[in-house]
Amino acid sequence: MGLAKDCKINLHSKYRKGARNLITDVAGIRVGQVTIKSEDQNINTGVSAIMPASDNIFRRKMFAASSIINGFGKSVGLVQMEELGTLESPIIMTNTLSVGTALTASVKYMLEMNPEIGVETGTVNCVVTECNDGELNDIRGLHVREEHVRQAIESASEIFEEGSVGAGTGMEMMGLSGGIGSASRLVEIGGKDYTIGAIALTNYGSSDGLVIGGDYIGRRIKAERIKEDKGSCIIVIATDIPMICRQLKRLANRAAHALALTGSYSGNGSGDIAIAFSTANRIEHFNEGKFKNIDMIYDDELSPVFAAGVEAVEEALISSIYHADSMPGVRGRQEKSLRDYMHLYEG
Amino acid sequence: MGLAKDCKINLHSKYRKGARNLITDVAGIRVGQVTIKSEDQNINTGVSAIMPASDNIFRRKMFAASSIINGFGKSVGLVQMEELGTLESPIIMTNTLSVGTALTASVKYMLEMNPEIGVETGTVNCVVTECNDGELNDIRGLHVREEHVRQAIESASEIFEEGSVGAGTGMEMMGLSGGIGSASRLVEIGGKDYTIGAIALTNYGSSDGLVIGGDYIGRRIKAERIKEDKGSCIIVIATDIPMICRQLKRLANRAAHALALTGSYSGNGSGDIAIAFSTANRIEHFNEGKFKNIDMIYDDELSPVFAAGVEAVEEALISSIYHADSMPGVRGRQEKSLRDYMHLYEG
Amino acid sequence: MGLAKDCKINLHSKYRKGARNLITDVAGIRVGQVTIKSEDQNINTGVSAIMPASDNIFRRKMFAASSIINGFGKSVGLVQMEELGTLESPIIMTNTLSVGTALTASVKYMLEMNPEIGVETGTVNCVVTECNDGELNDIRGLHVREEHVRQAIESASEIFEEGSVGAGTGMEMMGLSGGIGSASRLVEIGGKDYTIGAIALTNYGSSDGLVIGGDYIGRRIKAERIKEDKGSCIIVIATDIPMICRQLKRLANRAAHALALTGSYSGNGSGDIAIAFSTANRIEHFNEGKFKNIDMIYDDELSPVFAAGVEAVEEALISSIYHADSMPGVRGRQEKSLRDYMHLYEG
Amino acid sequence: MGLAKDCKINLHSKYRKGARNLITDVAGIRVGQVTIKSEDQNINTGVSAIMPASDNIFRRKMFAASSIINGFGKSVGLVQMEELGTLESPIIMTNTLSVGTALTASVKYMLEMNPEIGVETGTVNCVVTECNDGELNDIRGLHVREEHVRQAIESASEIFEEGSVGAGTGMEMMGLSGGIGSASRLVEIGGKDYTIGAIALTNYGSSDGLVIGGDYIGRRIKAERIKEDKGSCIIVIATDIPMICRQLKRLANRAAHALALTGSYSGNGSGDIAIAFSTANRIEHFNEGKFKNIDMIYDDELSPVFAAGVEAVEEALISSIYHADSMPGVRGRQEKSLRDYMHLYEG
Repeated sequence: MGLAKDCKINLHSKYRKGARNLITDVAGIRVGQVTIKSEDQNINTGVSAIMPASDNIFRRKMFAASSIINGFGKSVGLVQMEELGTLESPIIMTNTLSVGTALTASVKYMLEMNPEIGVETGTVNCVVTECNDGELNDIRGLHVREEHVRQAIESASEIFEEGSVGAGTGMEMMGLSGGIGSASRLVEIGGKDYTIGAIALTNYGSSDGLVIGGDYIGRRIKAERIKEDKGSCIIVIATDIPMICRQLKRLANRAAHALALTGSYSGNGSGDIAIAFSTANRIEHFNEGKFKNIDMIYDDELSPVFAAGVEAVEEALISSIYHADSMPGVRGRQEKSLRDYMHLYEG
Repeated sequence: MGLAKDCKINLHSKYRKGARNLITDVAGIRVGQVTIKSEDQNINTGVSAIMPASDNIFRRKMFAASSIINGFGKSVGLVQMEELGTLESPIIMTNTLSVGTALTASVKYMLEMNPEIGVETGTVNCVVTECNDGELNDIRGLHVREEHVRQAIESASEIFEEGSVGAGTGMEMMGLSGGIGSASRLVEIGGKDYTIGAIALTNYGSSDGLVIGGDYIGRRIKAERIKEDKGSCIIVIATDIPMICRQLKRLANRAAHALALTGSYSGNGSGDIAIAFSTANRIEHFNEGKFKNIDMIYDDELSPVFAAGVEAVEEALISSIYHADSMPGVRGRQEKSLRDYMHLYEG
Repeated sequence: MGLAKDCKINLHSKYRKGARNLITDVAGIRVGQVTIKSEDQNINTGVSAIMPASDNIFRRKMFAASSIINGFGKSVGLVQMEELGTLESPIIMTNTLSVGTALTASVKYMLEMNPEIGVETGTVNCVVTECNDGELNDIRGLHVREEHVRQAIESASEIFEEGSVGAGTGMEMMGLSGGIGSASRLVEIGGKDYTIGAIALTNYGSSDGLVIGGDYIGRRIKAERIKEDKGSCIIVIATDIPMICRQLKRLANRAAHALALTGSYSGNGSGDIAIAFSTANRIEHFNEGKFKNIDMIYDDELSPVFAAGVEAVEEALISSIYHADSMPGVRGRQEKSLRDYMHLYEG
Repeated sequence: MGLAKDCKINLHSKYRKGARNLITDVAGIRVGQVTIKSEDQNINTGVSAIMPASDNIFRRKMFAASSIINGFGKSVGLVQMEELGTLESPIIMTNTLSVGTALTASVKYMLEMNPEIGVETGTVNCVVTECNDGELNDIRGLHVREEHVRQAIESASEIFEEGSVGAGTGMEMMGLSGGIGSASRLVEIGGKDYTIGAIALTNYGSSDGLVIGGDYIGRRIKAERIKEDKGSCIIVIATDIPMICRQLKRLANRAAHALALTGSYSGNGSGDIAIAFSTANRIEHFNEGKFKNIDMIYDDELSPVFAAGVEAVEEALISSIYHADSMPGVRGRQEKSLRDYMHLYEG
């Protein structure tokens, strides 16, 4: 877990990385995280909050879409996002059984920010995503409390840690410690640089499956436990390219390609869900006129966007295990870190 | 609000009604409700819980599917239902901002019933649906508490009230008091009677839009407020016909037809969502073998099922306003009941 | 069959009708039709072509979307429309088994109009829709030839006939002669009138199901044949309101509501498919810049658009049978016209 | 192009291959192909037909589903497959502009095999898929004729060629000759071996993108033309595992993972579509009873099925270019074969 993006891994990237190589390279985006651990090592969970805007996202929504790569998951808020094509709340990540708590906390935050909700205007669609950290965390204990979510939201910053932190604390990926990973790529369109950033919560994959930049290193790792490709993966992609909701769904769909490059075949139990949003057009909640003028990239220009998006997500996924710590967990479990096996890397 | 199903309305039904003319005519289904009201009339909300099975629904799941007629809604649990085609929890109805609370309460109930969740097996997918009762209820107050949800679950019975009760307490439909409605129909297939039951949480429609069995009565009702077709409608359809998930989605899709027959065009803000499930095949959580033998009706036999389903839903929708009371509400509002206008009915 | 829109039917409309009360009230749209009949009455089929633009639709595409109300149908071109959100060809209607012929003919027309297809640029996505006219037509004979399709395209006009004409020649709806119907509605948005037009190819419904403006007339019609709700219905909605593809899908979804108002529950075999497109933004095939500036109505303004859309589609459906003739058909069949039963109408 | 499956490439497979390592390892499946070439090298196209059953597929349908990985494509028949969950025709592959011809030919074949279609029963849903071979083929010439399709159907055999043959004749993949590829894998479930077979029509990818088993060989290939990831890819997966339509969609979704492993990010113009079907349950067209008894694998057992499916598809994709010949084409073009670059392979 750490801030250093000194990842010595070759992912055969073609696109330039952003300044921080984090999703926060997309202007306005911040990430806040709260890590919840107990001394007896039974509690290993937390919250990560992606704040899409520095201003009020409810009053100035963003185009957004999701891709259900494998819907064995309990994310909240995707139905309305599909219908209206917009994001109007933070995106919260936490453990599966704490989604209700995170939803209530996010709703309360939005109510506080927007006194008109439920009175002069309708309600709010809060997005909460999850993975099951039950392998390392006493997930039945429901240890995430509303104040943790609030704290994650309020501590959001452009700089944030990766690895075993926030919602990623108790996650495991490919039989190793998983967690939070992030990366970004730059794409030049019409003479101007645009940014595509990704953040992932990784909790998927079978222990011998790991692939890093074409190196099937999983075959050489003597993993603690051979198990099925269950768990899950949440991927959030942000960009400042003017893309409308349909185009963002196309981008989100490419998260499947990135997962595959790390060795995932999206096993039955892996709730693999991607969300993509664009900061470029803002849709007012209280519109004054009847029509909105928006910019939209031509679909013919999207191939490099898709390619760079796959690169950013792939690196976010690998970065999550690269930064994750070896972790003691509930019921005496112990998860090893990728760093324990980096001598096996031949990529 | 009441038990009497003495509805004097002609909906041009072709199919026979079940014994109770409620969703509980489908064997094993129970409904529990908690109504939450304050003396100062600011609080008008509640919880309705549809219990799909008398045994443990998590260990013996049912085929299920949803139809997003208009996705301006915040229902929870539909993503996994789509992927796996099963229902493994009660279906909770409540107000929009209390979905998080209801989700947490439902999760806790499932954890208690299934000690293996989060330890030997994965997590649980709880379904929670909602409408916005903010017109009559202080929805910002988040007055639904976890114990209300638990109480609704535990009080579930084959007999239940319709109208301004449970989650329906503060709802409004077509500018009148909305609420909970239910109905059922029988279909003979291969010489045997099968049942299709429906329950609806109604909160949709513009005040002049109401149609009852072809009578455009809404045009004659002097409604309190002319407003847009916002609000929402949740529809749950149950049957004992052996239908697989794909077929149940087809059935759920027909809820749109029933909505239309009552005068709805699914306005922009109306989160109209239908869920259908079948009690006929049960899918074990802990499977002993690798394969499951199931029964499936031929799609060629589905037309009467669809027709009867539309009838059941249409009557459930109308029954909700027929049984609803005139309601005082938050900020001095007052909703009239359909019964106040039945002298205008010409059907 | 005829041009007179003197329909003496009360559909409880709230919105004003367009000048022609046809889909061609949306500026730029034309419809061409070819009726194919044989003297021995075995052949009763044809082609209807909706031309979305007076200029080259391939080079200047329109936003479009479809709604699969009941996917028991063989329409062509909807996959790409969903992915790219655009329409780039005429919309051809014909009988089910002639879709291949119509597709080839439409492709040839597009190749001729666009010499760059297949050389400097990619291919073209032609949309072809269908219903099964096998009850009245020798559909196995594949009597639609490429030249018929070409002729329909080239004869397109703002004025066109309804009823037993073009693709509608051999169709039946609710046990009566079906066919081609059209209607339009006006909606004022921001002080300006916009038009929503619809055209339908009707071939659905069981003989006792017909409802006209709330009058369950089908119960009183002594239909020739009692049969299941099979057949199909194709609905095309056009508008000059600046709606993007996601919004057009929302509008297309409301075609289900209109079907329901005419007595359909979308029976198992009824391939009910709606397509909606907007003439307001044009998307260049050969884009000069990288970004496109477009106008988009706020979703909050869509409720009247949906309501007027339902009205236009409902009237298009009823208009198809109102204008249809009693029809002799293959194997000695004889279909009666609604006009034979109008004395039973009480609406 | 050839029969020898002597592919010296390491794809890190974990699962055993079937006897032929072709889709025809799934019992009952046959593939027929017709290659259409002209002496002047302007015509390079053809037809491949996958015959799912040795008996009448219309009268005894199979569960099936599709996955639209990137819907920039013109495939036919997927709407009904989604609604009814069945396959009832051969699956034809051809070039994009010849889909209409192939559809008509397939319809005629089905009419001949089933005299009841269009008379005593409804119509037939024929599946036709396509890629754009316009880089090497005079695609505007529409050189595929109905008799070619018929010949492909009638010549179907368990043994068939891969590479530049049938529909694959003029295709290109990753800047090299693409074409037809196939492979299979065995999975043991409950002590019995089941087979998953795949066949692919490959026409996708940018010239520097090719990855083979983790070797980024594309970076070292000096390709003729650097171009965008356009083109398309059609993937058909067959299995004898008892999977229902929903499960087959889950399997088809994993084709995206296999594409990614070969270096694809599904560029904007790449119509990447996968179809999966199971030979295990047969659904009668003329059902005698009302209910069908079917077997269904538990979803919990699907992870190895997904993993083996990804392996089979990945090898089918690579096998297509491994067997493809260097190809002269229209307008003087010349496509090189992977074999011309195998000295660069380091995997």
